[in-house]
Amino acid sequence: MVNRNGDVPKSVIRRLPVYLRTLDILIRNEQEIVSSRELSEKTGFTAEQIRKDLTFFGAFGTRGTGYTVKYLRDMILKIIGLDERTSIVVVGVGHLGTALIRYNVTKNPYVNVVAAFDVDPSVVDKDILGVKVLHISKMKEVMKEYNIKVAILTVNTESAQEAVEYIIKSGIRVIFNFAPVKLIVPENVHVHNADLSIELQSLIYYATVEK
Amino acid sequence: MVNRNGDVPKSVIRRLPVYLRTLDILIRNEQEIVSSRELSEKTGFTAEQIRKDLTFFGAFGTRGTGYTVKYLRDMILKIIGLDERTSIVVVGVGHLGTALIRYNVTKNPYVNVVAAFDVDPSVVDKDILGVKVLHISKMKEVMKEYNIKVAILTVNTESAQEAVEYIIKSGIRVIFNFAPVKLIVPENVHVHNADLSIELQSLIYYATVEK
Repeated sequence: MVNRNGDVPKSVIRRLPVYLRTLDILIRNEQEIVSSRELSEKTGFTAEQIRKDLTFFGAFGTRGTGYTVKYLRDMILKIIGLDERTSIVVVGVGHLGTALIRYNVTKNPYVNVVAAFDVDPSVVDKDILGVKVLHISKMKEVMKEYNIKVAILTVNTESAQEAVEYIIKSGIRVIFNFAPVKLIVPENVHVHNADLSIELQSLIYYATVEK
Repeated sequence: MVNRNGDVPKSVIRRLPVYLRTLDILIRNEQEIVSSRELSEKTGFTAEQIRKDLTFFGAFGTRGTGYTVKYLRDMILKIIGLDERTSIVVVGVGHLGTALIRYNVTKNPYVNVVAAFDVDPSVVDKDILGVKVLHISKMKEVMKEYNIKVAILTVNTESAQEAVEYIIKSGIRVIFNFAPVKLIVPENVHVHNADLSIELQSLIYYATVEK
């Protein structure tokens, strides 16, 4: 039903969670059918873009009718790989790591932080809203127990590369990096650098252009 | 020299800081001229896209030669509105607010956190890497002293709308919102919702598709 083998542009993959969230809201409102035009109004992407994005993975709508909301939501979960509750870990339990654990635990319906890691004895063995902080050397064991999909890296710049070695040795292949440093990784490891500076700077435009 | 009056798509504005960062690296490496093809290699956007984006604001390059690095950097600073050191504030000094203050203070060359605000007596009057935490009722005074361009909102869901009223009353017109709640604001106020869940979910795709 779902084709996940194509070479799909990053921009398409980035829009999928936006569609997912919109469909989840429609489901909560008990809406059964949605047109690409209505999805366009709710997401800000054009109807053509939405139809084209979904075509990468299969044919999910009916011309003239639209999409069955629940079916399309389930298909997008499958496309992303979120069809089960997905396990992730947080590496680095400073202010940012703690904030992300709290944020995730309470807000994200599809992703589950199963453990956090640090080396600092003052945080190891602590518990943050039910998430246990373990010494980084335990990562491989945790990976064996859960099938960890992503490591969120929130250590400081100096510790980042060493932490990455632990992550890779444990078998995790995707890193969401908040440390402001270019990580050195093998080709089969995917690093996504979070960059709040970029978002912040683009906002300055709106603060200054409307005068 | 710089046209900032056009109706520019959001996606273009979001790419400008990426160009800016790339140009800053070239300047540090003392490179004087750059082609759109080289900018493409370094940013991941196509050369056509880069040329098209810049055309919204003026003509900055020479056909067959490329762009003068410093000139283009200065033009992009002007386009974004970053031509002076831009003042922002952080509203909410929990884990996330603290992390953003530390992150910004040490990492962002163009944006300056001039103050932070909270209502909690246990954090008001504290100092985070030189950034003073003030009671939220002082925001208007700080706005008078500095010309605050953006408020980063990191309070909890329950306090978000009340904090927004203070922000708007103080005259700040752009809000970077990390509270997972839809804020109610007048039409002339621009809210950008940070959404780490969206980024995280799109990463799950890469963790699951490559098996």
